[in-house]
Amino acid sequence: MSSFIKVGIVGYGNLGKGVQQAIAQNPDMELVAIFTRRDPQQLAELTGVVTEHISAAERYIGQIDVMILCGGSATDLPEQTPQLAAMFNTVDSFDTHARIPEFFSEVNQAALNGGNVSVISTGWDPGLFSMNRLLLQSILPEGEEYTFWGTGVSQGHSDAIRRVPGVRAGVQYTVPVQAVIDGIRAGETPQLTTREKHRRECYVVAEEGADRGEITNTIVNMPNYFADYDTTVSFITEEQLAKEHAGMPHGGFVIRSGVTGTGSKQIAEFGLKLDSNPEFTASVLAAYARAAVRFSREGAAGAKTVFDIPLGYLSPRSAEELRRELL
Amino acid sequence: MSSFIKVGIVGYGNLGKGVQQAIAQNPDMELVAIFTRRDPQQLAELTGVVTEHISAAERYIGQIDVMILCGGSATDLPEQTPQLAAMFNTVDSFDTHARIPEFFSEVNQAALNGGNVSVISTGWDPGLFSMNRLLLQSILPEGEEYTFWGTGVSQGHSDAIRRVPGVRAGVQYTVPVQAVIDGIRAGETPQLTTREKHRRECYVVAEEGADRGEITNTIVNMPNYFADYDTTVSFITEEQLAKEHAGMPHGGFVIRSGVTGTGSKQIAEFGLKLDSNPEFTASVLAAYARAAVRFSREGAAGAKTVFDIPLGYLSPRSAEELRRELL
Repeated sequence: MSSFIKVGIVGYGNLGKGVQQAIAQNPDMELVAIFTRRDPQQLAELTGVVTEHISAAERYIGQIDVMILCGGSATDLPEQTPQLAAMFNTVDSFDTHARIPEFFSEVNQAALNGGNVSVISTGWDPGLFSMNRLLLQSILPEGEEYTFWGTGVSQGHSDAIRRVPGVRAGVQYTVPVQAVIDGIRAGETPQLTTREKHRRECYVVAEEGADRGEITNTIVNMPNYFADYDTTVSFITEEQLAKEHAGMPHGGFVIRSGVTGTGSKQIAEFGLKLDSNPEFTASVLAAYARAAVRFSREGAAGAKTVFDIPLGYLSPRSAEELRRELL
Repeated sequence: MSSFIKVGIVGYGNLGKGVQQAIAQNPDMELVAIFTRRDPQQLAELTGVVTEHISAAERYIGQIDVMILCGGSATDLPEQTPQLAAMFNTVDSFDTHARIPEFFSEVNQAALNGGNVSVISTGWDPGLFSMNRLLLQSILPEGEEYTFWGTGVSQGHSDAIRRVPGVRAGVQYTVPVQAVIDGIRAGETPQLTTREKHRRECYVVAEEGADRGEITNTIVNMPNYFADYDTTVSFITEEQLAKEHAGMPHGGFVIRSGVTGTGSKQIAEFGLKLDSNPEFTASVLAAYARAAVRFSREGAAGAKTVFDIPLGYLSPRSAEELRRELL
């Protein structure tokens, strides 16, 4: 596939900014416009490109090959993806695992009606990690599989910390337990719950005069969020928080430990170590935008996931070139 | 895809045996017959299943959904794959990288003529490693990519050792240089040749009275094979060779170290640690045999590579189930 891809971005938070940067790294892609629910004229100063209110999207039918949707999974995407899939090819990173079947079905209907292709739930989990779970299960049907997340910030757990009385600000890192990973890499196949695989590190800025012992107690005993985990709480200053915890690192591993033949141990692992979670997710979205356009140009329509897409569709290079140089 | 897959195996070396074992791990697959160039009656004692001379393959048209070809890339597959692709869906592990374009073209023609699907060059390299190179390049277009092999036996280098005068037997392991890998995982992006990434460990059984210093010298200075590498030679007994070096371990890594946004480092890695190289390759072939049959049942024909195949085609589970449970 060598033809040019004209892209729209919907939403301009960290993910939308990341997509704008990712498009700049892909010479076969051009950013046409950014769509927002905010005041487009004000936002245009930040984006530096054509910026439109989301209600203007319809006017771009025929001028945009694919819309990359950068809203959140809680409320934005359930509404925006079906709406936009009726008008454009789309890609999103819908990540509420439990609601994927229902989301797929709604987006599929809208995309079929519009004659468009919608790639849903891409990124790294769901996304690259899902692909590795599927690939490695299919190759090694007898085995155990492990997904670890981190070291990275969990937004939900950080929010939970900030709701504790006496806490001014805070951030929570999910950290995979190294000893467990080392054991699995060495061939062990323990039965583990998520909590046994991860610990939680909290960095908290306390209000002046707050009881730090009380804060720590409240956090480590908080049901659902922290009580079942090995949780540490460290108190830091506002300056430290701004300086040392402003990044959005993340990562993790999918490991499958399988057995073949008469007991040969076969271990496969896919891992990510990301300085910027939103920029990496954005880069995955950009590659899948290419796949959506390619499917659409071949006449396909409907919702697709990473399981439906041949890897060759992600690359700007031709099939011949890929066979010659990468196979 | 839930329907049953009837499989034939062509060739019964280590890979063919591994495929037989892999089929036993996949409840949706049934082994119909093994085809050989040897005396089928004699071989049948080993295989324990219907064993036929390869010239009898044609009689199985309609009874076998896919032939898994387990011959070598030097002489077997260039002849067998086109021949059998005219009659059956096929899967092979053709791994002579430089000849892939020409092989693809011949197999494609034969498969199109026969109305069959032929998945060529699968396994782990070419195969899973190729897929990761393509995937990670497409997601992180700015970056450096590294493929390491080992620790594992190199057949070509083991053969080279055995041709040295005074050597009775021997085996060579390709070993990735750990310090280099650690540096890349930590974010370094050095420019490296294959030789800087790997060292070579040779285990040699010398003839009685042979000059060991002379043998070592000949090996470490052998052009193409060893002269450019950090090579060690250890002398062992025939018993040690049989006891400690009978396995066929292998593995390796594909690492891409990319940059996004304004300099965020993003590192992705896929790695394998295999007790049995042929059994793992065989397991990959079995999964791709499922994909070949599925493509064929959809009406497709021609040669395919791992770049053309949606990952969902590798699994016996339905698309709905995969979305619900693995995405």
